Amino acid sequence: MNSLKPPTFKDVLSAYRRISPYVHRTPLYHYDTLDRLLGANVWVKHENHQVTGAFKVRGGLNLISQLNEEEKAKGVITASTGNHGQSIAYASRIFGVKAVICVPRNPNPTKILPIRLYGAEVIEHGKDFDDARMYAEKLAGEEGYRFISSGDEPHLIAGVATYTLEILQDLPETDVIIVPIGGGSGASGACIVAKTLNPEIEVIGVQAEKAPSAYLTWKERKPVKAKMETFAEGLATRAPFMLPQRILWEKLDDFILVSEEEILRSIMLYLENTHNLPEGAAAAGLAAALKIKERIKGKNVVLVMTGGNISVENLKRALAFKNKLTRKK
Amino acid sequence: MNSLKPPTFKDVLSAYRRISPYVHRTPLYHYDTLDRLLGANVWVKHENHQVTGAFKVRGGLNLISQLNEEEKAKGVITASTGNHGQSIAYASRIFGVKAVICVPRNPNPTKILPIRLYGAEVIEHGKDFDDARMYAEKLAGEEGYRFISSGDEPHLIAGVATYTLEILQDLPETDVIIVPIGGGSGASGACIVAKTLNPEIEVIGVQAEKAPSAYLTWKERKPVKAKMETFAEGLATRAPFMLPQRILWEKLDDFILVSEEEILRSIMLYLENTHNLPEGAAAAGLAAALKIKERIKGKNVVLVMTGGNISVENLKRALAFKNKLTRKK
Repeated sequence: MNSLKPPTFKDVLSAYRRISPYVHRTPLYHYDTLDRLLGANVWVKHENHQVTGAFKVRGGLNLISQLNEEEKAKGVITASTGNHGQSIAYASRIFGVKAVICVPRNPNPTKILPIRLYGAEVIEHGKDFDDARMYAEKLAGEEGYRFISSGDEPHLIAGVATYTLEILQDLPETDVIIVPIGGGSGASGACIVAKTLNPEIEVIGVQAEKAPSAYLTWKERKPVKAKMETFAEGLATRAPFMLPQRILWEKLDDFILVSEEEILRSIMLYLENTHNLPEGAAAAGLAAALKIKERIKGKNVVLVMTGGNISVENLKRALAFKNKLTRKK
Repeated sequence: MNSLKPPTFKDVLSAYRRISPYVHRTPLYHYDTLDRLLGANVWVKHENHQVTGAFKVRGGLNLISQLNEEEKAKGVITASTGNHGQSIAYASRIFGVKAVICVPRNPNPTKILPIRLYGAEVIEHGKDFDDARMYAEKLAGEEGYRFISSGDEPHLIAGVATYTLEILQDLPETDVIIVPIGGGSGASGACIVAKTLNPEIEVIGVQAEKAPSAYLTWKERKPVKAKMETFAEGLATRAPFMLPQRILWEKLDDFILVSEEEILRSIMLYLENTHNLPEGAAAAGLAAALKIKERIKGKNVVLVMTGGNISVENLKRALAFKNKLTRKK
């Protein structure tokens, strides 16, 4: 349990003013094809069209832009091989801050390239994410960098909450928002905004069955570690972040788990029905919607496509899964 | 040779006012990753985010909205299994017009589904596109439908020209626009707008080596039929459309041919560098840019990603091509 204060709705509005010059106002598109699939009125919030290809950058910009002069001069450090790392690197370039991103050894070069292109220093250390994270914390102590947690940061939550502002500007009639959960910053941000503007909006979280730490922590109302075996790296957390969890405990309406097969199927359904290519985590919302089809029937449902940074390997996995399904018929 | 009048810049402005309520104003995004790849300043016009997933709908809306009451009452007919068919079906739904789309027998169901969802009648006839087109012309005569050509229609050209208005609103400093050419409506629209607003902008067309009819017609300044063997159906024309050609003869700066391998490679490069998935035709612009890298060095280059309606089969082809490349290394 930590003592960080959850951001307020006012913090989200401030974040929105702060980050707007640097992010895309992403579209909320309606798809007839998804209506037909789900028996509901379905919109997709396209954070896959966001700069860096994912919603996380809204948080990175909100945090980096509020560093004080001393912190800016010393620089920041974090650990991530994915969207969080790109977010911090991108925001740091804009605000002229030195950024160090620690990644495990032998990372996927296509994931590291954008981080380097944004001008961040990449340090390879350790065999997995936790090794890299601990090394980042150690370096932060030694070098005086500001360490950035990927979940327990009020400014990250207030920043990523801004996409829900845009959703409700575009569709005030929203009944249900379905959000993938990895660390929980996106979902807790969605809760803060939706429950402030219209408490009747249901916010539903989704995680992978194969990485249920956030789910179990939410269900049991206490920190629970769990296996982390999903291919969808955006949903993969081994241990919960307690700041988002405390928000979710209070505000989240429901939490659905989906299988690897359901996620793979949803990647292909998105591709065929919207011609957008979501990363695994970003397809989880559709997988959950299919699971609770009866419950959302006829409602105005928003699925958040959180990111489009799918690896070629995972795309092949989704195609191979579809092949298997087709052969079975 | 036909006697249709090319649309003027004023026609494009009128089209823009007419269609704006029904289309997305698609983004023009800059990508650091593509800058690095091409040694230029590279923007992508995201018509793959357009309604129906392709730029064509701008033309369909401009044409259908201008039918007279008698034409509206009788309905329209056209032939297409692709983006043009979706465009006409979508526009016809909005303006309450009956639409009939003729397609060859045994079409790919994923391509036909959106046409049906938009409420158009789909008639399967003949073994290929030309059979379907001739049947559509025959039915038009018998039933009194307005036949819509997919290329020789001034209203289609004026409509699709509107994306170039948006490009130049967003990036007045544009030096080069690279546009894929199938029938040539998109490229001729780009020429009309760019050459009016700033004659120094270079407009460069791209077609597949394996379907060079438009290219040969442009080079030789007379109609030339050619083979049509490209997998990129948006670039596949066997015979030229003369209205767009006459515009291209006068205004197009250059015309590049690209191989099937270059297109497949560009699909994967787009996927990895922008996390957008273009259809084959939409990837051709990047393929051409790579081919003329020296010539566009340091310039402000806009690549038009004309559509995102890639079939699963073509996506597999692109991935298989990448596998082959990787194994060779």
